[in-house]
Amino acid sequence: MKLLEDRILSEGKVKPGGILKVDSFLNHQMDPELLFEMAQELKRLYEGEGVNKIFTIEASGIAIAILAGYVFDCPVVFAKKSKTKNISDELYSVEVESFTHGNTNTVVVSKEYLGPQDRVLIVDDFLATGAALVGLKNLVEQAGGTVVGAGIAIEKEFQGGGNLLRAQGMRIESLAKIASMSDDSLEFCR
Amino acid sequence: MKLLEDRILSEGKVKPGGILKVDSFLNHQMDPELLFEMAQELKRLYEGEGVNKIFTIEASGIAIAILAGYVFDCPVVFAKKSKTKNISDELYSVEVESFTHGNTNTVVVSKEYLGPQDRVLIVDDFLATGAALVGLKNLVEQAGGTVVGAGIAIEKEFQGGGNLLRAQGMRIESLAKIASMSDDSLEFCR
Repeated sequence: MKLLEDRILSEGKVKPGGILKVDSFLNHQMDPELLFEMAQELKRLYEGEGVNKIFTIEASGIAIAILAGYVFDCPVVFAKKSKTKNISDELYSVEVESFTHGNTNTVVVSKEYLGPQDRVLIVDDFLATGAALVGLKNLVEQAGGTVVGAGIAIEKEFQGGGNLLRAQGMRIESLAKIASMSDDSLEFCR
Repeated sequence: MKLLEDRILSEGKVKPGGILKVDSFLNHQMDPELLFEMAQELKRLYEGEGVNKIFTIEASGIAIAILAGYVFDCPVVFAKKSKTKNISDELYSVEVESFTHGNTNTVVVSKEYLGPQDRVLIVDDFLATGAALVGLKNLVEQAGGTVVGAGIAIEKEFQGGGNLLRAQGMRIESLAKIASMSDDSLEFCR
């Protein structure tokens, strides 16, 4: 998606350790018009797939997810990072490693809000190693729901998570796919 | 706002300790159409006030905030709960007590995204003791910006935070204001 690629090129900052900071329009300050265009592009990509629920993880996935929910006209659920390891019977839970923060989170979702009737589009801001996506997919499967696919803002393709999941049959659509990046260059996949 | 009050009455659950759970449409599962209507109501209330930035705090304020940003046609910034007490020079920070979780968070925002030119509408899902709102107002003031007012989804008026801040001259618009609640009843302010 050219609009997003242009913003990454003009405002993204590459940090040591394969980190791309897009804090000026996606992760801290957010551009609602850009995010709305991204949500509409996801709708175009998944048109006719019967998506009836959008699923994401707090915090920075929520903004794209709610706009996606608005254009898909369906509820949005966000998985929460649990403060405790004691998980109640009312929750599905999974362990997710964070690439950015170098820790592991217990991620939970209420059993009330995911079920066998759900055809789920997983939405997130970044895809790198795929750990968050695997975790969210696992939660949908625990609930007996169907993962229609994933809609990602920025995929760091060179980190491999996306292609590993595609090889397992998962549909993943990323609005910008980065092939490589370093302090002074950033290349998109073509 | 009748649409929101009706949802609170039909789906809200009162928990011990003055907690209102609205997980089915606002805090865990979210109804994008309802939240969009709420954002439009905030726009109507703050029309002509020159709002040029929406400011909220992660995580559950983000959804209403991004929709508000879309209808106000301005950027959205969310303050982050810091993982560390070591605050860099690039950040404004403040301590905020959480009523729901019973702890204190260091809340930060990058100096890049708030400044003297900003006329800020603070948006959040709940207002109870007002601790989060005081913290967000403090961050805007550190940046030299102007707080135009606050737009809140649900105010628990009986907990006093909103009226304390109003008495200090702050404009606060709450889309639903709860006068009292118990296990078997919930009354709105009239």
